[in-house]
Amino acid sequence: MLITLQSNISIYAHAAVGGKEEYSGPLGKSLDYHDSNDRFSQDSWEKAESEMQRIACNLAMAKAGEEEPQLLLAGDLMNQCTSSSFGLGGFEKPFLGLYGACSTCAEGILLGALLCDGSVERAGLITSSHFCSAERQFRYPLEYGCQKPPTAQHTATASGAFFLHRGEGIAKIERVCIGRISDGGVTDANNMGAAMAPAAVDTLHRFFSSTETRPSDYDGIFTGDLGYEGHRIVCDLMSELGYDMGAYYTDCGLLIYDRKAQDMHAGGSGCGCSAMVLSTHILPEIEAGHLQNVLFIGTGALMSPSSVQQGLAISGIGHLIHLTKGN
Amino acid sequence: MLITLQSNISIYAHAAVGGKEEYSGPLGKSLDYHDSNDRFSQDSWEKAESEMQRIACNLAMAKAGEEEPQLLLAGDLMNQCTSSSFGLGGFEKPFLGLYGACSTCAEGILLGALLCDGSVERAGLITSSHFCSAERQFRYPLEYGCQKPPTAQHTATASGAFFLHRGEGIAKIERVCIGRISDGGVTDANNMGAAMAPAAVDTLHRFFSSTETRPSDYDGIFTGDLGYEGHRIVCDLMSELGYDMGAYYTDCGLLIYDRKAQDMHAGGSGCGCSAMVLSTHILPEIEAGHLQNVLFIGTGALMSPSSVQQGLAISGIGHLIHLTKGN
Repeated sequence: MLITLQSNISIYAHAAVGGKEEYSGPLGKSLDYHDSNDRFSQDSWEKAESEMQRIACNLAMAKAGEEEPQLLLAGDLMNQCTSSSFGLGGFEKPFLGLYGACSTCAEGILLGALLCDGSVERAGLITSSHFCSAERQFRYPLEYGCQKPPTAQHTATASGAFFLHRGEGIAKIERVCIGRISDGGVTDANNMGAAMAPAAVDTLHRFFSSTETRPSDYDGIFTGDLGYEGHRIVCDLMSELGYDMGAYYTDCGLLIYDRKAQDMHAGGSGCGCSAMVLSTHILPEIEAGHLQNVLFIGTGALMSPSSVQQGLAISGIGHLIHLTKGN
Repeated sequence: MLITLQSNISIYAHAAVGGKEEYSGPLGKSLDYHDSNDRFSQDSWEKAESEMQRIACNLAMAKAGEEEPQLLLAGDLMNQCTSSSFGLGGFEKPFLGLYGACSTCAEGILLGALLCDGSVERAGLITSSHFCSAERQFRYPLEYGCQKPPTAQHTATASGAFFLHRGEGIAKIERVCIGRISDGGVTDANNMGAAMAPAAVDTLHRFFSSTETRPSDYDGIFTGDLGYEGHRIVCDLMSELGYDMGAYYTDCGLLIYDRKAQDMHAGGSGCGCSAMVLSTHILPEIEAGHLQNVLFIGTGALMSPSSVQQGLAISGIGHLIHLTKGN
């Protein structure tokens, strides 16, 4: 569903926080804050993830100055989205919880933009993921030392906060396209890229058709996070539909880590991955004028450990945001 | 955060589905559909819950005729909100996932109203809960036959679908008040009413202050779902703040079951409880003209089994919707 925003809505402040591996990656030096042991001074991985959200939101608040968001949208991968509720309660802001798996960053920015296009003046979106809390919830405790196949992605330890308002900012949100649930029949929880790729393709195809544009009309197209496997599938499926995704198409899961130096299998994933790449790479590039016309497609895998154990296929969803340098 | 809607936004179609106990309760005969063994022809409780969402959405679609919603908002209590994603994928509609625990019904209607006050014409909200899927996820498998203390509530097996648009309808949404996360320090997962009551009070107090109204200005005030314990705490805390909640204040968790005939401890709870009461009682009463000016406050407990095991307090949130008969 394509919506062209009526008002001038922009991202006016943002911040990103990351862990050790994320700091060691190619975008690490652009993080606002990192922790060298991923614990963020907490005694559980779950609390560490909440603390990342608190720090990311706090850093964005500092940049926003008196322009604090009126409400916060937030979500994460933890059961019942507790990283968000425990991390952000202290801000005492009106709070709306989201669940979009790894698409949460795009879903929240999209919703925030739509709210600012209506009765809300300023909205914030915060999201996070933590490798250690995700591993023990979705797979096995780290102590087991389980090995993973090469198609598996690495959940990023990162959090991002993005504040939107009506008015000028770092990047303008021109249009949004809300994703639909796509079931490609993939049941392998170690191949999320393949499970989510059809959803990204569905959204991209609908967006290009509705806007009568092509990939070559944009100087940056970023899915997040399909990793190596999903990125290739998107190129193939789009090619079958007659679209050459071109040299400007990449994936946040491929940008966050150095695939050669860091052993991250098919790349990064998790709500925090695309949030960190948006904050440390895409928005700075738009602000610097290196990118002018960008598509950011947050993709999520809609599954739970129970649904996988019960043999259900992993559905995907992809929400698109069209960002420009603005005026 | 109080928002007065600029456009004429109303609920124009709705439907509710319930299980055996819900059908046996005082509102059961107003359900659009029920299943006498809670299975809804599925081979797992999780699939049964998804099927309830599918049926509720389908029934509301039938009532809406050609006025199908442009997008669906949905959420539930299951890990990673899989009841919604598996239940609603088949509609092939743009989809935005929410997590607000038992406040999801109010959160989604509130968000749908704000979206319709902006660039969206018609939005749908679907939510659900299922006693059996919730018991095995949050507490113990049913086969253990665990006993519960009297403060515990019974997760309703129910689903509700609500479609909103700009224009006339069954009930008009005048104002909404987005809740804040409130931590009252309660750590007992068998006393959710006490955990959520401070959040309901926070929202009610802010709403009455901002609008300069009092409980006696409304002919119906419904929290959902605090149950017997939480309802009493709200009356006490509001009284300390100088508000007499009066005879028109009740709770959806108290309305859904017959406390004497059905052994439901402190009353109903779960996303489906307030959704079912809204669809089978509040909206029909507004439509019939018996209620003219109603406050509906969806309350949610923001916790997970892990957060409780780690000793964290259960935070609450309460989102308010001000409904009137409209024109």
